[in-house]
Amino acid sequence: MKEVIEYIERNRERYLEELNEFLKIPSISTDPKNREDVVEAAEFVARQLKASGMEKVEISATEGHPIVFGEQITDPDQPTVLVYGHYDVQPVDPIELWESGPFEPTVRQGELYARGAADDKGQLFIHFKSAEAFVKTGQRLPVNIKYLIEGEEEIGSPHLDQFIEENQELLGADVAMVSDTAMFARGVPSICYALRGLAYFQLDLEGASTDLHSGSFGGAVVNPAFELSKILAQMKDDDDRITIPNFYSQVRDLTDRERQEFSRLPFDKSAYMKDIGIRELPGEKGYSPLERLWTRPTFEVNGLSSGFSGEGAKTVLPARAMAKVSMRLVPDQDPDQISDLFEDYVHSLAPSSVKLKITRMHGGKPWVASLDHPALIATSKAIKKGFGKDPVFQREGGSIPVVATFAELMNLPSVLMGIGLPDENAHAPNEKLNLENFYCGIKSSAHFLDELSRSGL
Amino acid sequence: MKEVIEYIERNRERYLEELNEFLKIPSISTDPKNREDVVEAAEFVARQLKASGMEKVEISATEGHPIVFGEQITDPDQPTVLVYGHYDVQPVDPIELWESGPFEPTVRQGELYARGAADDKGQLFIHFKSAEAFVKTGQRLPVNIKYLIEGEEEIGSPHLDQFIEENQELLGADVAMVSDTAMFARGVPSICYALRGLAYFQLDLEGASTDLHSGSFGGAVVNPAFELSKILAQMKDDDDRITIPNFYSQVRDLTDRERQEFSRLPFDKSAYMKDIGIRELPGEKGYSPLERLWTRPTFEVNGLSSGFSGEGAKTVLPARAMAKVSMRLVPDQDPDQISDLFEDYVHSLAPSSVKLKITRMHGGKPWVASLDHPALIATSKAIKKGFGKDPVFQREGGSIPVVATFAELMNLPSVLMGIGLPDENAHAPNEKLNLENFYCGIKSSAHFLDELSRSGL
Repeated sequence: MKEVIEYIERNRERYLEELNEFLKIPSISTDPKNREDVVEAAEFVARQLKASGMEKVEISATEGHPIVFGEQITDPDQPTVLVYGHYDVQPVDPIELWESGPFEPTVRQGELYARGAADDKGQLFIHFKSAEAFVKTGQRLPVNIKYLIEGEEEIGSPHLDQFIEENQELLGADVAMVSDTAMFARGVPSICYALRGLAYFQLDLEGASTDLHSGSFGGAVVNPAFELSKILAQMKDDDDRITIPNFYSQVRDLTDRERQEFSRLPFDKSAYMKDIGIRELPGEKGYSPLERLWTRPTFEVNGLSSGFSGEGAKTVLPARAMAKVSMRLVPDQDPDQISDLFEDYVHSLAPSSVKLKITRMHGGKPWVASLDHPALIATSKAIKKGFGKDPVFQREGGSIPVVATFAELMNLPSVLMGIGLPDENAHAPNEKLNLENFYCGIKSSAHFLDELSRSGL
Repeated sequence: MKEVIEYIERNRERYLEELNEFLKIPSISTDPKNREDVVEAAEFVARQLKASGMEKVEISATEGHPIVFGEQITDPDQPTVLVYGHYDVQPVDPIELWESGPFEPTVRQGELYARGAADDKGQLFIHFKSAEAFVKTGQRLPVNIKYLIEGEEEIGSPHLDQFIEENQELLGADVAMVSDTAMFARGVPSICYALRGLAYFQLDLEGASTDLHSGSFGGAVVNPAFELSKILAQMKDDDDRITIPNFYSQVRDLTDRERQEFSRLPFDKSAYMKDIGIRELPGEKGYSPLERLWTRPTFEVNGLSSGFSGEGAKTVLPARAMAKVSMRLVPDQDPDQISDLFEDYVHSLAPSSVKLKITRMHGGKPWVASLDHPALIATSKAIKKGFGKDPVFQREGGSIPVVATFAELMNLPSVLMGIGLPDENAHAPNEKLNLENFYCGIKSSAHFLDELSRSGL
């Protein structure tokens, strides 16, 4: 390992240059305008895998964006790790809030700013460079390695499950490695052992067939913006409990051990609030902020649009109102079942005077891992060597639906070794990645391959 | 009068051509981009007044858009009418719903389509052409006439009250004539004797300082879009009564006579609903649709905006949410007092976890006239001659704040002789004016000048 680690140290600058090339590609998966860019990012990934010594590299077309697969089998008796990641990124709006261009990677004070720096290009990249370090120093990879890199994570991975289902043999592995989460805090390397799921919807309400004058028609014609507000307002009660009937019936209570461990984590309430510019941490009664973020489901309004929202005043009675809404789910809630409950409830709340359309946008299952799994223990040792300190075990509020898919379709356990930070603005302007964590991440990834070969898996 | 009416009949085509020139000017008062166009519209009006024989025509600058004044004093013993109107128009969004360009006047099946056709350029125009008909047929105007034409009606007339206050002598008159309302129905010429007032606001809520990932942060961070929905939802109860404390304390109940007269009007519920594409006429309990539209105050959401509202799904926890809201007011509600009540109530509803900003956009007082006034009786006779049938007396749900200003500052009664139709899409795409009503309106305006001279006023 000494040679491998030295190689990594020597190549820091080149790694950054190559990552910058990756980040310059505006591979926004949700926007049809960027379709070619997404393909370019897939090709970039394929070239990286070849450079990392993979024997087999394939770009597979889907009905959406392509999936990149890579493989190097060095010893069938050794365990096989399947590295999962995504090369697509979130949209960049509001673009005017970026201090440097989202696709012009810029280093300021040890942080690399670009859309995708943390989510997920920069994190994925560490697993290319760890393999490369073994190959380029003339060593055999300590375990077998496979890569499954998709381009549709930010739009809910609509074609990934089918690909996995149809390629179970190709993808066969003993553990999946995913770096797409954040560390608990700066200087606190972490392993994430649970994720929340997701159910995302668009609600469209329509009243009159055209916008009307609010003076001439107000009082006899339904206002869909008001009715939408009423529906949304009824989704949570005064204790911030979600009011959808039977919504909580499958929710697994957090254990006493978890409550204790979470309460020991160095969660600095006032620093957290200061970071994101809030004055309070409101939320569901009876749970601490970390418990709410990690172990409790939520209901969020992600977007609103209706009528006139430009400068000045327009006395319009809008014909239409739209909301994007989503729920974060926790074990053992099922997105399909929750979606049914949600739709029934919204239908029951909407007055007969509006036309209501509910569109299911995407969903993902929640997931939780066993802390005693050999791969988690190997990861813990690898992080200790890569970062110089023991990791903490945490959960995460976001979704990585593929982790649930691995568990269900392939009975494949996952390890979530995130090297992002909580303030890295994933999905927001000025997304960034701490460069020191990036380099420690490459070393941890290399140690992981080594530790896994001795884990008894 | 015979000569005057014949002159009007002979000049129908030229009237339409000249009105089209007026309608081609995109005098949108709310948009700074159109500032020059608004000035051009003012100059057009001044030229029309000169052509109508006015001795004195002046364009007065204000801090906003100019005010055009015109005057012809023919006999100090005769009554003086002050014609009020506005040459500015509403914005045109959503532009994609217009079947012909908003500033490319087009006649289809007897209807003239253009922004401002009904509100208010087309209606104002009838009072230019009636005066012209007297002058061009070599006759003295039967009464003295003054014109007060502003360019800021659609943004709440911010500089008109001051102009009126400072020019009371110049504007001195016995009655104001305003054509900026709709007839009760096609074929039912009408006089409007009451208007609702207005109080319009923008609400801005802010949570975190930047948009956040709804997975990583959802559960501990306030969602301003949800909190905004909650505030809006609490503005009306299940009976559609507005819940602002003391909101109804100044509301004048409608009289038994009004209830009876309204119930006799040919209000075709199913045609009304079909016209605007709705299936029900919901609203405040205990009042008929016409009573609600004309005599009851309302609360409307005019616009909503927050987070992500584009194509697809973005899992954002928005930093900000905005609503445009307004209340229609009825006699004797006062916009300032109602605005205070509204602001206090919204502040009481907003949680401490959001920053709330309330902006007063504009307001206008409600108004009601006496049905026995000689000018109303003269108008009634003029309409009978111009349209060939007796008018009905109705109220109107919209605001014309200047009417309240005339009453308060100058003790000046107003006559509202609207020749628009209820389905003419004022403030919406495909605004139009019925050409037959336009020509009958010119004749009615000429008869009004004649009848007023014999009204005993």
